[in-house]
Amino acid sequence: MRETAIIIKEKIKPKNPVLIVGLPGIGLIGQVVARYLAEELKGKRIADLYSPHFPHQVFMTKKGGMRLIKNKFYYMTGKKRDIVILSGDVQAISSVGQYEVSGVILDYIEKLHIREIITVGGYSTGKINDKRRIFGVATSLELKKDFEKLDVLFGSARGSIVGAAGLLPALCKLRGLRGVCLMGETHGGYVDIISAKSIVVLLSKYLNFKIDFTKLDKKAKESEKILRKVEEEIEKSTIMPYKPGEGSPSYIR
Amino acid sequence: MRETAIIIKEKIKPKNPVLIVGLPGIGLIGQVVARYLAEELKGKRIADLYSPHFPHQVFMTKKGGMRLIKNKFYYMTGKKRDIVILSGDVQAISSVGQYEVSGVILDYIEKLHIREIITVGGYSTGKINDKRRIFGVATSLELKKDFEKLDVLFGSARGSIVGAAGLLPALCKLRGLRGVCLMGETHGGYVDIISAKSIVVLLSKYLNFKIDFTKLDKKAKESEKILRKVEEEIEKSTIMPYKPGEGSPSYIR
Amino acid sequence: MRETAIIIKEKIKPKNPVLIVGLPGIGLIGQVVARYLAEELKGKRIADLYSPHFPHQVFMTKKGGMRLIKNKFYYMTGKKRDIVILSGDVQAISSVGQYEVSGVILDYIEKLHIREIITVGGYSTGKINDKRRIFGVATSLELKKDFEKLDVLFGSARGSIVGAAGLLPALCKLRGLRGVCLMGETHGGYVDIISAKSIVVLLSKYLNFKIDFTKLDKKAKESEKILRKVEEEIEKSTIMPYKPGEGSPSYIR
Amino acid sequence: MRETAIIIKEKIKPKNPVLIVGLPGIGLIGQVVARYLAEELKGKRIADLYSPHFPHQVFMTKKGGMRLIKNKFYYMTGKKRDIVILSGDVQAISSVGQYEVSGVILDYIEKLHIREIITVGGYSTGKINDKRRIFGVATSLELKKDFEKLDVLFGSARGSIVGAAGLLPALCKLRGLRGVCLMGETHGGYVDIISAKSIVVLLSKYLNFKIDFTKLDKKAKESEKILRKVEEEIEKSTIMPYKPGEGSPSYIR
Repeated sequence: MRETAIIIKEKIKPKNPVLIVGLPGIGLIGQVVARYLAEELKGKRIADLYSPHFPHQVFMTKKGGMRLIKNKFYYMTGKKRDIVILSGDVQAISSVGQYEVSGVILDYIEKLHIREIITVGGYSTGKINDKRRIFGVATSLELKKDFEKLDVLFGSARGSIVGAAGLLPALCKLRGLRGVCLMGETHGGYVDIISAKSIVVLLSKYLNFKIDFTKLDKKAKESEKILRKVEEEIEKSTIMPYKPGEGSPSYIR
Repeated sequence: MRETAIIIKEKIKPKNPVLIVGLPGIGLIGQVVARYLAEELKGKRIADLYSPHFPHQVFMTKKGGMRLIKNKFYYMTGKKRDIVILSGDVQAISSVGQYEVSGVILDYIEKLHIREIITVGGYSTGKINDKRRIFGVATSLELKKDFEKLDVLFGSARGSIVGAAGLLPALCKLRGLRGVCLMGETHGGYVDIISAKSIVVLLSKYLNFKIDFTKLDKKAKESEKILRKVEEEIEKSTIMPYKPGEGSPSYIR
Repeated sequence: MRETAIIIKEKIKPKNPVLIVGLPGIGLIGQVVARYLAEELKGKRIADLYSPHFPHQVFMTKKGGMRLIKNKFYYMTGKKRDIVILSGDVQAISSVGQYEVSGVILDYIEKLHIREIITVGGYSTGKINDKRRIFGVATSLELKKDFEKLDVLFGSARGSIVGAAGLLPALCKLRGLRGVCLMGETHGGYVDIISAKSIVVLLSKYLNFKIDFTKLDKKAKESEKILRKVEEEIEKSTIMPYKPGEGSPSYIR
Repeated sequence: MRETAIIIKEKIKPKNPVLIVGLPGIGLIGQVVARYLAEELKGKRIADLYSPHFPHQVFMTKKGGMRLIKNKFYYMTGKKRDIVILSGDVQAISSVGQYEVSGVILDYIEKLHIREIITVGGYSTGKINDKRRIFGVATSLELKKDFEKLDVLFGSARGSIVGAAGLLPALCKLRGLRGVCLMGETHGGYVDIISAKSIVVLLSKYLNFKIDFTKLDKKAKESEKILRKVEEEIEKSTIMPYKPGEGSPSYIR
């Protein structure tokens, strides 16, 4: 495998679909939201994305299997609109990798006739109140207006968005697609379930679906545990393999 | 997006055109000059350049929009010659990226029948007088002679030029184009408005245009502020994403 | 050479073949096993793999020759099944390199109609008993059952496998091939001959071959010596070439 | 420019030719030998090699020009055999770059029907006598025998050869060409003119040319001075451009 590739597990013809992207990032908000939606709305896994820009290691499973590091696409039908969700273990680590992975994702969703992308992330404000605000930036006036009606704050967030949460909506504009990034206000130093929940509520209003929130807390803790494990393992592969350690032979890795 | 690409916004047929390049560099002279010319001469934006060799992040705008990191081409007509200006947020960070971006720029300007390239940069001499000198290096005897008449010093600068200011005129020679790099003498430790102005004056003589200098000071301060902000944000994306920080969970990025 | 390439030395048409992979890794178990099998079973060298993702240096031989860093394929016929062995000096150092090399290996073995891959590695448990356990992870239920019958423990190992030992069986699943990674329990801090031997015994049962174990100890020590030498040399090439050292001119490299 | 490229300045049809390669390396022996031969034997420049794997900067010349970092090919006719010489400012810095550059060089010389490659380097033995030994490693028995007759020691040098001096003869074997690396014994800590001279003498015997040695000392000092300058400049471009320095704005570079 020399380039990022998507392995399609099931072909779909979604109805007026939207892509929701939640990958590891600030406060783990995106990932908690995406994993929770995929599970609670009983999303069907339709495709996996693999990339040489992900770490070169596999995870062992409890049943004695193993799996590559990947990103996953889920699909669920809705009343008015169908939803595709992108979730995953990691984001590509280099700029070249991030641009390549984003390009492959956009190629795929264009084939599914998806013309709207919502990425979910966190926005660290240092101090937070009980009621978390949601900040937005959009590449489409239409999307901006829709989310402003749902109390998302546009023009308040400052600075930059690192990684897929920013790249995907910005790049999709070059293809004539609509994109918005929704950022839950968060402290930045821990997994923020309250903020994640506020985004799930927002999306349920925007996309008109019903969802049970009782398991969100449990799910978020599970997400955090998984990611910590994932990161701990990835850390191992970034140790320079040919650099001899102190007191132990260098071929031990 | 897997390779550097130029998105053309408007097709032009320039008359005996010259490309002026001013990207971030020593003393910020190139960028101040390019941005000032583009604004004061009312340049029309004709193309944007995007690259996977730029940082993988987007900037949020005041109006709640977002934009990719990019380089921009402007176009303005002149009495005798038309001018195309290349300005931008960043330069590619790696050698491979620098060569790729330069190649894409030269492909584009060749299509516009541009056969002359002027890059603008700074040259740090440590100590400076009120009257800043301008140093030049050229790949064309004709250009050298023209700028020598305008008091540019050839053969005085020593050492090397890092990045696009050097690569573009040197690479364009391989394609049979003329190139010169004009370097404003500068201290090196701050944005040098006096040196930038001296180059704007030089270019106005060489290309025979009139320009108001009253706003240069304000513009330069604005340029500095923007670049500081850009760099501050880019800094964030270069923090190793999988490296756990001290006292904060490693997935926070 | 711009991409990983396999140079075929001899064409073979193996009978119901299996690939056994043993490259440098934890406790050097994989490499000791692969080299020992190749030598004791009188494997014939059928192909060499070269890669720009291996270090850019060559080894000098005792006879005044030199050779590139490489991976090697050996072939031996068996009663029921033929065996192909992959051994080598190094693994690719980057993720992009690891994925490319794995892809080239899988392309090659598919051409040989190999549909089963066994990678051998080590699994560090910190403390070890005289009787080393063997852990397994598989991408095929069939392989898992076969090795469970031979006392390999599935579902006990935790975490991740870095490099080719994990990537090859995981990637081969995407091509419809069967894969298993066998990991010898080991301390992690030294070459583990006992653990390597236990895997050779396991493979002799699984593949139904007879093998003399008397030379394993000597072979393992030789393997360790060679690898230490290889790593010592590779270390030299990773010193930044343009970084001046202290007290010696910077062009010395 | 996205890939390493050779710009041909003059087409030649050499007679039974040999390639001699001398690039920056241990004791600067290769570079001193190659530059001296090219100048004393009045070599004609026939081609330049450029690469995105070389540093992204240009050197300013005394006459107010500038030039890209490059490698250069020279050509000279001989009584029995013609000679092509490869010399240059730098070697590619990464493994991927080294393999790409070597591949492009071999493609070019194959087109010139060159079937023999001699690379020149240094071999650090720590302590040295007045009479420097010359060590050799070859990929051709024929070449080995020829140089053994001229007192080159085969089988004495140990370890590895980093960079083009090793990669080129090793890779050329895969193409059916003959290759040898000649290493002048040297201390390792300074430019070794005595060792360089011993290799020039050796090559004059092997290739049957006459050469004046009186200017070698002067030439070697010049080579050292140039390379120090080159390295000093390259050092500048490897400073991380987006990393803010202490006490000075980060855009200053």
